[in-house]
Amino acid sequence: MATEKQQFQLIAEDELSVKLIDAQYALKDTRGQKNAKSLVVLVNGIELAGKGEAVKQLREWVDPRYLRVKADRPQPLNESQTFWQPYARFIPAEGQIMVLFGNWYTDLLSTAMHVANPMDESMFDHYVERMRAFEQDLKNNHVDVIKVWFDLSWKSLQKRLDDIDPSEMHWHRLHGLDWRSRKQYDAIQRLRQRFTDDWIIIDGEDETRRDQQFAQTILAALEHCPEHLTESNKKWQQASIPEILQQPPQEEVDKTTYKDELKKLSQQVANTMRMDRRNVVIVFEGMDAAGKGGAIKRIVKKIDPREYEIHTIGAPEKYELRRPYLWRFWTKLQPEDKITIFDRSWYGRVLVERIEGFANVAEWQRAYDEINRFEQDLCEAQTVIIKFWLAISKEEQASRFKVREQTPHKRFKITDEDWRNRERWEDYLQAAADMFEHTSTDSAPWHVIATDDKNSARLQILKTILKQLGVG
Amino acid sequence: MATEKQQFQLIAEDELSVKLIDAQYALKDTRGQKNAKSLVVLVNGIELAGKGEAVKQLREWVDPRYLRVKADRPQPLNESQTFWQPYARFIPAEGQIMVLFGNWYTDLLSTAMHVANPMDESMFDHYVERMRAFEQDLKNNHVDVIKVWFDLSWKSLQKRLDDIDPSEMHWHRLHGLDWRSRKQYDAIQRLRQRFTDDWIIIDGEDETRRDQQFAQTILAALEHCPEHLTESNKKWQQASIPEILQQPPQEEVDKTTYKDELKKLSQQVANTMRMDRRNVVIVFEGMDAAGKGGAIKRIVKKIDPREYEIHTIGAPEKYELRRPYLWRFWTKLQPEDKITIFDRSWYGRVLVERIEGFANVAEWQRAYDEINRFEQDLCEAQTVIIKFWLAISKEEQASRFKVREQTPHKRFKITDEDWRNRERWEDYLQAAADMFEHTSTDSAPWHVIATDDKNSARLQILKTILKQLGVG
Repeated sequence: MATEKQQFQLIAEDELSVKLIDAQYALKDTRGQKNAKSLVVLVNGIELAGKGEAVKQLREWVDPRYLRVKADRPQPLNESQTFWQPYARFIPAEGQIMVLFGNWYTDLLSTAMHVANPMDESMFDHYVERMRAFEQDLKNNHVDVIKVWFDLSWKSLQKRLDDIDPSEMHWHRLHGLDWRSRKQYDAIQRLRQRFTDDWIIIDGEDETRRDQQFAQTILAALEHCPEHLTESNKKWQQASIPEILQQPPQEEVDKTTYKDELKKLSQQVANTMRMDRRNVVIVFEGMDAAGKGGAIKRIVKKIDPREYEIHTIGAPEKYELRRPYLWRFWTKLQPEDKITIFDRSWYGRVLVERIEGFANVAEWQRAYDEINRFEQDLCEAQTVIIKFWLAISKEEQASRFKVREQTPHKRFKITDEDWRNRERWEDYLQAAADMFEHTSTDSAPWHVIATDDKNSARLQILKTILKQLGVG
Repeated sequence: MATEKQQFQLIAEDELSVKLIDAQYALKDTRGQKNAKSLVVLVNGIELAGKGEAVKQLREWVDPRYLRVKADRPQPLNESQTFWQPYARFIPAEGQIMVLFGNWYTDLLSTAMHVANPMDESMFDHYVERMRAFEQDLKNNHVDVIKVWFDLSWKSLQKRLDDIDPSEMHWHRLHGLDWRSRKQYDAIQRLRQRFTDDWIIIDGEDETRRDQQFAQTILAALEHCPEHLTESNKKWQQASIPEILQQPPQEEVDKTTYKDELKKLSQQVANTMRMDRRNVVIVFEGMDAAGKGGAIKRIVKKIDPREYEIHTIGAPEKYELRRPYLWRFWTKLQPEDKITIFDRSWYGRVLVERIEGFANVAEWQRAYDEINRFEQDLCEAQTVIIKFWLAISKEEQASRFKVREQTPHKRFKITDEDWRNRERWEDYLQAAADMFEHTSTDSAPWHVIATDDKNSARLQILKTILKQLGVG
């Protein structure tokens, strides 16, 4: 954490206000432009250092309609949700500004300071590192992140506690912390020293300088709207396409065996997912007509619809396009959802969006790491991610398309676009190969399933789920 | 509750599927049209009657991408949130279908059946009536609501419990109910008899008939997309415009008195709001430059920004326009927010939207009752609503506009549109008068504050808040 104080000059209040408002409007006007961005301000610090007052003063200088402030009580970090899950929905859209009093650092400090069960240092550092990585992903996706620590010396803090109106006292026991305890004050100061060095530290001693420094920090951030990167500076290494994608082997299974096995396996999958204390996320990708829908149907065969959620992912909505690419998945995954199945997923970024040019080179190339971090965060929050690529041969796809066209209740499944996509067949195989190369991790490996024979594919999928859950 | 069984004929599965899919696509195509609607399906009933299976079968017949299913554990009704708050965000946009397993009736039954603390009948009936009214408001706003009760006789239920796979048993103790208890079975049947008569009752005895009746019910609802009402059939009675709006009295207060009083009152308001166990919602409406922003600033003077939320309400976003008008307020009000201030509010419907023609006659005329019900639900959920109309004279407004134009950091507050709005001055006064007439209720009365003298207006607002909170 940087300890040197930021140098700055006081600006006349009216002038500062005009500058801030101009910058707000300029930010708003970036929406949909090449330099569009939004701004998240994470506010933390020592109690009574004046973070509340500084935000209030900022709100008076700016146009308050375009500055949202959100404050929730700290939620202790726990094993069943990622640190970003409680805040994902507050990530602002292009052109917007969001001040978060309650944020992942509030939760981290509150957890680390827990009297009965303090967090060990290596775990603390691990979280700090994950948070920093998450913020970098936000920045790369045009959500600028400013982190401000309002500081106050022990002596000044005690003086302010002496002077405070008793009716306001309850605020100063937030996080269950006792600010009269020197030991605790020192502990929290020691912890924040372990933060990364991209924090702005504001001394809360002098009110005017405090408010000005805070507002000027925001101003500088608002005024800095660089154009988005569209090219990558790395040379892209294509992965080689696995044999199974080129020529999916066809292993047939006879009907009786299939029926018996299906019954047994679907029940086993249902029981295993129920009994597992982790959440289960199952992802399906693959060519059109490869059998995603049919496979999902067999997975949920013995599960009550109240136990699972299926998300069918299509093109993003406009309000989703104004946020980081993964945002619509951050907000779809709820910690209380036990079983979630994705019929297409966040991998759209490196498949259809890459191929059709909806994502530029910089965007899809950096998406692999973003996705890996996203999945790792989920895995650390007691979630098993099981990823399937359904591999079909080009001939089998053509014959399924024809059946769809001839069957009235399947006709909705087939459009001209599906036929057009076949022209990009090799591009999709290449994109799939690159995806396996970059996102098949130990905790969330890809499973490629040959699906020319639907029945054996379905059985194999069920068996794979059991295996990934540590059974069978 | 209707006891007669619905007459229906079985349809061949493929044919039913085609019809459902066609109807889904037709519904989707209504988006933005004069007959646009969405559909909410509330699924309740006796355990093991097969509601899960019927929904699963429906999902196989339709295009699953356009049918969302949501199931949450029941949340006991409680004093601190309205029955619709947990579900507001799941109300679908035009063209969408949402099946809610967990819904306000699940919560009601679960609360009423609570072993230690059952709900009395009059309270039960009161909730049923409020829910029916809420659903009617949804329907008027083009969200069709279908309520389905899956029924099963005591004998069949016991037989199914005998036959069930032990691994699935835990589902049948949902709501904490014991389906082996005859007493409890009878109690729940007695309660659902008290529901309104607009439920569809499906007998779960025969699986095929059950699934078909459910799917055909949905099909009929999908196929019925009448054009929206745009005219009202009632003759509109204009209210007379109160003197205070025509000529707001100007009571000046000297500077010293103002400062002393402001200090005292703002502290008292802060303390009182904090100590009150209810949530506080404060609404500001009034002409441009009437002093809403300045008044809000004084209310929060002694309150930490973490304790309150300010919503500045402008034109709705596209995704909000595709839902009932009040939806964006349902979802903004969170039970955990202690103090919420609205700088403009849901009253936009009967003010700017009425005057500018953004809402048609049917819409704004029915909005008064919708708003009253909305506010009553909040009041019953331990929320105090304090509503202010800030009344300014036309001359004072003009002089404030001129000051704004000449002050650099206030210039953003004034646009050509503000000047144009002055041409509709009388229309706004009339709309305000009608609004007072129809929405000033015992629990949430309007307070009209003359604001030509800003300082006395601010003091009066603070005093009014104290009074509404039962102090001073």
